[in-house]
Amino acid sequence: MMQTIDHIGIAVRDLEQSMELYGRLFGVTTFHRERVEDQHVDIASFTVGTVRIELTAPTSPTSPIAVFLEKRGEGIHHVAVRTDDIPGELHRLADDGVRLIDETPRPGAHNMMIAFLHPKSTGGVLLELCSPKD
Amino acid sequence: MMQTIDHIGIAVRDLEQSMELYGRLFGVTTFHRERVEDQHVDIASFTVGTVRIELTAPTSPTSPIAVFLEKRGEGIHHVAVRTDDIPGELHRLADDGVRLIDETPRPGAHNMMIAFLHPKSTGGVLLELCSPKD
Repeated sequence: MMQTIDHIGIAVRDLEQSMELYGRLFGVTTFHRERVEDQHVDIASFTVGTVRIELTAPTSPTSPIAVFLEKRGEGIHHVAVRTDDIPGELHRLADDGVRLIDETPRPGAHNMMIAFLHPKSTGGVLLELCSPKD
Repeated sequence: MMQTIDHIGIAVRDLEQSMELYGRLFGVTTFHRERVEDQHVDIASFTVGTVRIELTAPTSPTSPIAVFLEKRGEGIHHVAVRTDDIPGELHRLADDGVRLIDETPRPGAHNMMIAFLHPKSTGGVLLELCSPKD
């Protein structure tokens, strides 16, 4: 079941500059910092109410975020939906004809397992499913 | 103060088709429907946890959503942050050098007052401030 919006991922070029900018915009001073090796990204995140904002900068030119920045520039990259059952949701969606980027969950930030759906199947919105690791 | 993420606005071409798609993706069957004359858009919304997803289709070629669709195609259009004081936040942000689209709040969907910040000042993210009407 799709339970809640977990976070909004924002593609940024320079994490330090973006932390300064978003800190001013949202009035925040502390960020969670993390590197996700699997996706070649560095993350700085903060929460607004119950939703996390994840500023995401590439650590290599092959990072999906580097490709996105090249094509679209800085901005909203994805929306992550928390579910209690990623494999079950992937199965349900694939059966319904939705194209998956990840057929099985893989490690993400914040000790979560994650899986992306293909934006061609989701109205141009890059959707991530996420679920806390057991 | 920036209190919580109120909604995520998604630009769509055909509201009926998108309701069918997002209904399947999120397992929802009921939508709130509304026309916002001021922005020349029709909206169909639903909630995921505490966050509203607003599917937004243009009702005229001059709608900002029509312009966005022409330029970027379907996808995430904006993120709306709920605040208890839009004028105060606009004042704070403008003083801090943030470029505003709306210098004063105007009516939006869901009986809210809204104001947009300019994405040139917010790392390419179109941010809306919103607050329930008194």
